[in-house]
Amino acid sequence: MSELTGNCLVAQSGGPTAVINASVAGVVNEALNYECIEEVYGGLNGILGVLNEDIIDLANESQQAIRGLEYTPGAALGTCRYKLKRATDFERVLQVFEAHNIRYFFYIGGNDSQDTADKISKLAQEKGYELRVVGIPKTIDNDLVATDHCPGYGSVIKHISTLVREMACDNSAMGQGDLVSILEVMGRNAGWIAAGASLAKRRDKPNDPPHLIYLPEIAFSPEKFLADVQRVLSKERYCMIVCGEGLVDADGNYVHASSSATDAFGHGQLGGAGDFLREQIERRLGIKARTAKFGTSQRAAATHASQTDCDEAIMVGQAAVKAALEGVTDKMVTLIRGEADHYVCETGLTDLSEVANGVKALPVGWINEDGTSMNFQFIKYATPLIQGEIPVPYENGLPSFAKLKKTRIFRLLDPYQPE
Amino acid sequence: MSELTGNCLVAQSGGPTAVINASVAGVVNEALNYECIEEVYGGLNGILGVLNEDIIDLANESQQAIRGLEYTPGAALGTCRYKLKRATDFERVLQVFEAHNIRYFFYIGGNDSQDTADKISKLAQEKGYELRVVGIPKTIDNDLVATDHCPGYGSVIKHISTLVREMACDNSAMGQGDLVSILEVMGRNAGWIAAGASLAKRRDKPNDPPHLIYLPEIAFSPEKFLADVQRVLSKERYCMIVCGEGLVDADGNYVHASSSATDAFGHGQLGGAGDFLREQIERRLGIKARTAKFGTSQRAAATHASQTDCDEAIMVGQAAVKAALEGVTDKMVTLIRGEADHYVCETGLTDLSEVANGVKALPVGWINEDGTSMNFQFIKYATPLIQGEIPVPYENGLPSFAKLKKTRIFRLLDPYQPE
Repeated sequence: MSELTGNCLVAQSGGPTAVINASVAGVVNEALNYECIEEVYGGLNGILGVLNEDIIDLANESQQAIRGLEYTPGAALGTCRYKLKRATDFERVLQVFEAHNIRYFFYIGGNDSQDTADKISKLAQEKGYELRVVGIPKTIDNDLVATDHCPGYGSVIKHISTLVREMACDNSAMGQGDLVSILEVMGRNAGWIAAGASLAKRRDKPNDPPHLIYLPEIAFSPEKFLADVQRVLSKERYCMIVCGEGLVDADGNYVHASSSATDAFGHGQLGGAGDFLREQIERRLGIKARTAKFGTSQRAAATHASQTDCDEAIMVGQAAVKAALEGVTDKMVTLIRGEADHYVCETGLTDLSEVANGVKALPVGWINEDGTSMNFQFIKYATPLIQGEIPVPYENGLPSFAKLKKTRIFRLLDPYQPE
Repeated sequence: MSELTGNCLVAQSGGPTAVINASVAGVVNEALNYECIEEVYGGLNGILGVLNEDIIDLANESQQAIRGLEYTPGAALGTCRYKLKRATDFERVLQVFEAHNIRYFFYIGGNDSQDTADKISKLAQEKGYELRVVGIPKTIDNDLVATDHCPGYGSVIKHISTLVREMACDNSAMGQGDLVSILEVMGRNAGWIAAGASLAKRRDKPNDPPHLIYLPEIAFSPEKFLADVQRVLSKERYCMIVCGEGLVDADGNYVHASSSATDAFGHGQLGGAGDFLREQIERRLGIKARTAKFGTSQRAAATHASQTDCDEAIMVGQAAVKAALEGVTDKMVTLIRGEADHYVCETGLTDLSEVANGVKALPVGWINEDGTSMNFQFIKYATPLIQGEIPVPYENGLPSFAKLKKTRIFRLLDPYQPE
């Protein structure tokens, strides 16, 4: 145990998830346990808040608000997609840390964010500024290496599987062997999220919806696709399809990029895969199809969040603080699944640089030979992650989420102009 | 009380809702109370099940399954959009009713379905076949006349308002005054559903999302729309827009019908309004926008259903049976709101023909002058309809919905060929 007295700062980065705020709650609750952590700060809008000295006093928030973060979606501290590039950016971060005696930095995010955290940590070492940097994993995309899974993933696939179950009740009532529904889900380059929809099938009911899942990992063939749809419709009243937003053809091009679905900026827009599939079905099979596209609501679906996911998001936040207090730096907290049949999960640590430079692919061996469904290995992996429901409080008929009052601390430096 | 002994049949028609099955549960539970109702039948796939003698024995279902209908979305009996047209269709219905001694017919549906029920009832009277026909209101569109509101509506607007609240947490974390989200919701010709999204605003917080609501009732002007968006973005971190799927211009044409968004059958496809708005924003303001489109999941969102709506859906089912047992025929059950400040609701009756021929418009006086938000009269009307949450049972991390075993009764007639 190496004693380092000073302040801590936590910030959130990248796309929000249903449980990213639970990790903030974990950091705050744990940080308050230690005397050598004097102030508990939050950086607003990710690393931008550090550059701009937009820093709030988290210890000043009510206990109710911090508790409320456990079921509040979005990023309560605000987030950003700003990537530090210039040397001056990194130096500014250290100036701000030094000005406010920030000695502990917890960055909640995906691989880009962990890369940023790594570079900050290394610069601090170079400059001889004593700083402990511990990353906290977060991404619905589930693509971070060295961790069994990522907080945020369990909730998004629980949400999508719930929607599949609900829509199946609707579609099975409407269909007469001629109804096709396409659900386009997030996941730009990996099929982790689309694959998760397979949890909607009941045990030993392979013909349950979703009938067909299309993943970025499998080169998309329109001919096979149309044959798949026809095969399902010959046996079922309806065909429910889940596709990732980033389907690619055999040459690695997005399937919808060549279609008319290019956006106003002239580039093929992600998010058109569902409409592309619909157009294929309508034009080539003459069957009416519908596309649903859930947008950012997927990653904000707190009312469908997984209790397991939420508990683990809190746990990684707490573990980051504990590790830093023990002297750890330049690491990210990981989740380690126990070997036993009964699911247990504990935390570990890995180098930030390892996370920064890797992407965890969906194992191709977990996809069935037909390329449109997942096998028992995936189901075994993913099922524990969606267990348990969160009792979100309702007020006047709607979920009531926490809002932070965000008391700013005084700025001590001159303004800075991020790129 | 006019005693009529025989069997009853209930069927479901049109688009499903989150609570249409609760009305079936209400009918079944109530019907079992009366000795003069001998068998409780369900017609599969709406009136098609009657034409085809696809009839099941509902009394043979487990109590658990019937209880489960109260929280199961979709139409458990199946539904159809088939509209009886030919005289032979109507005669066939009466033949089937006569063959199975069906003396009570309960049809759960919207105005087209109540029109069908009305015609069946009148033909029965003409032919001297003693039959009591009572309609049960159902539609997410909330457009039936003579009833204060329609079962199904409260749940769909609770769902959409929940999504707005959740997405707002996400978007407010991401936006820097340059983020536009568009949620396209159902409601072909009326803005009832889009209007309902205004419930997501907290009391006395007019600047809460959704910032802009576009309704089919107000002629759409692209210029005003772009000015609206710019005004919101000048004050807020993000702009959340809810639009109905059937926005029309000053000439009454669908706004997106003139764009490239025509479907494979060559006609302008409903469901393109959100993409049309997105294109306007990106092309004319140079701001990135995202469209979310929830498709049929909107009307199947059992996990976001309103307890009030569910209770009322059961109540109208029960009331239909009670009325028929008292000798009523050719009527639809209505919901009547009490005059008191505290919301109470009881059932009444109206002529099927009145419902068949009318459409209830969203009162224009409930829309604010800016044309993009709803006033207190709408809020007062809609708020009671979303109260209470339904404890949907979960199994292994996902909602577990009821499935009927659907024991068919023997067919007694020759097959029939619907149109």
